[in-house]
Amino acid sequence: MKSLVTGGAGFIGSHVARYCRDMGHEVVVLDDLSGGFKDQVPEDVEFVEGCITNQKLVESLFLKHRFDYVYHLAAYAAEGLSHFIRRFNYTNNLIGSVNLINAAVKYEVKCFVFTSSIAVYGAGQVPMIESMVPRPEDPYGISKFAVEMDLAAAHEMFGLNYIIFRPHNVYGENQNIGDKYRNVIGIFMNQIMRKEPMTIFGDGMQTRAFSHIDDLAPQIARSVKVRKAYNEIINIGADKPYSVNELAYVVSSAFGVSPRIKYLTPRNEVQHAYSNHDKAKKIFGRGSGVSLEKGVGRMAQWALKVGARRSAPFKNIEVKMNLPASWQV
Amino acid sequence: MKSLVTGGAGFIGSHVARYCRDMGHEVVVLDDLSGGFKDQVPEDVEFVEGCITNQKLVESLFLKHRFDYVYHLAAYAAEGLSHFIRRFNYTNNLIGSVNLINAAVKYEVKCFVFTSSIAVYGAGQVPMIESMVPRPEDPYGISKFAVEMDLAAAHEMFGLNYIIFRPHNVYGENQNIGDKYRNVIGIFMNQIMRKEPMTIFGDGMQTRAFSHIDDLAPQIARSVKVRKAYNEIINIGADKPYSVNELAYVVSSAFGVSPRIKYLTPRNEVQHAYSNHDKAKKIFGRGSGVSLEKGVGRMAQWALKVGARRSAPFKNIEVKMNLPASWQV
Repeated sequence: MKSLVTGGAGFIGSHVARYCRDMGHEVVVLDDLSGGFKDQVPEDVEFVEGCITNQKLVESLFLKHRFDYVYHLAAYAAEGLSHFIRRFNYTNNLIGSVNLINAAVKYEVKCFVFTSSIAVYGAGQVPMIESMVPRPEDPYGISKFAVEMDLAAAHEMFGLNYIIFRPHNVYGENQNIGDKYRNVIGIFMNQIMRKEPMTIFGDGMQTRAFSHIDDLAPQIARSVKVRKAYNEIINIGADKPYSVNELAYVVSSAFGVSPRIKYLTPRNEVQHAYSNHDKAKKIFGRGSGVSLEKGVGRMAQWALKVGARRSAPFKNIEVKMNLPASWQV
Repeated sequence: MKSLVTGGAGFIGSHVARYCRDMGHEVVVLDDLSGGFKDQVPEDVEFVEGCITNQKLVESLFLKHRFDYVYHLAAYAAEGLSHFIRRFNYTNNLIGSVNLINAAVKYEVKCFVFTSSIAVYGAGQVPMIESMVPRPEDPYGISKFAVEMDLAAAHEMFGLNYIIFRPHNVYGENQNIGDKYRNVIGIFMNQIMRKEPMTIFGDGMQTRAFSHIDDLAPQIARSVKVRKAYNEIINIGADKPYSVNELAYVVSSAFGVSPRIKYLTPRNEVQHAYSNHDKAKKIFGRGSGVSLEKGVGRMAQWALKVGARRSAPFKNIEVKMNLPASWQV
């Protein structure tokens, strides 16, 4: 079995690539290193540096490797920032995906695994369940929803099989903790290691069900062997929501420090977000269920090893109106 | 008042540009002439040849003209073909729209008028009404729906006002009758003038409520003056559905010939499509209500004047699998 993992030098992708390799797949990773790191590409996996928006490159990889499976995890997943980088967002997350879908149709890929996001649900729909009507409220969620619909259309017209996962608030080892626009756990860890206060938008009462990577990467990898998962949309991740304030305490305690918090002006975001995972449990069985304390502890050990990181600020903000102050370059 | 009309050398756009000019707007038309004709740009209107996907050009036009209103009608509207030209479809219809939305936000446009499509509804939802949950089934409908959602997000985040129209099966003078991929009335007229049989996909029992351009272009143009229309989605067009077979008879009779029909393999399309227009009537009052016989008669007179046309076939088909034979180049 030959598999393409896009975004395989990034956070979720590097884990999925490793699990695929361990299942015996020959794995090719395509990643532009915009958010990933070359040293995170698992051993014994072919690495191609490049972007999914490069249609010629995508086409040439499919022609050469005739993939059985595509795991499409490459994305620019900064949901809040997506309002300010609309064109970049749709180009990366939709046009890039469409290059892969076209190639998957042409080269008759057996299954196309796509990581969507709970951002497709929009606000005020909790617990989020797959039968709900999506109402995405930001360009990131809209782009993910568009790809979901496009996969359904490609299945109908061309018979392309797909599996769509909607993970949420994933954290863990290999996360880009230097990215200031996304992933609150990584941001907190980076801030603690740099002796800065943890920053929280609003009052910190917003809740999320933070999901450790081991609660989903193994299922994503082996999903192609689970026929019941084909052509389904499946929520995946942890069940229990925590407030961002609670999270700050858990992260601080993993580093053995007392929490220092700086509250910022609230931004336009969903207040409460947690999902129903009955469908995932029915299809894949119960996951490992890594607790927040345990998962954050493991990630903290890893973070202390790699140290604080600083990513370059996002250079091409398209619209600066209403951009949160902390995001202004 | 200064207005930008994208696609203003094309079919609906050229009429909207004319009505805007007649309302006293200074009008700039942006059109890449991919489907339009320069001689259709109304007199006393500034014409800029270029594409909405050219972000620098779009930005420079907004900077120079500081538009009050944007009427965004540029699109590649070949719904059936969109399965085979996914990347082109999303690039034109979504990325192009996003360039305009970004600029409209930055330059504080008063209202952004967007022509979406009934393609957002998907199959099996008739009569289509604005309160229905969209379920687009092809990349064209998905791209239109994505722009609708993106406008709602831009309104929420930046206060950009919009009006979204969902017209359907529009026909009339200035339509590109040489385009073999779309617009059945134009295709029939072109075929009759070229002494070819009229081609119908499937059994011709599929129904559409064909809408003459005068049933919608005036409302689209003056909508920016109707406050109740702001931030609304509005179906627009004719009420009465006809089968494609009935249509073939009406078109033949407008040319004074007996119908000759060649039935082709059915393609993947919605079987019945007609809309509820109560909302439009409430907001704009009753339209002119041009009957199919009268509208087709007027268009036939115009078509006889301009003569048969032959467009170049679409060059960059991305996926050829399952492409209807008549579309193969």
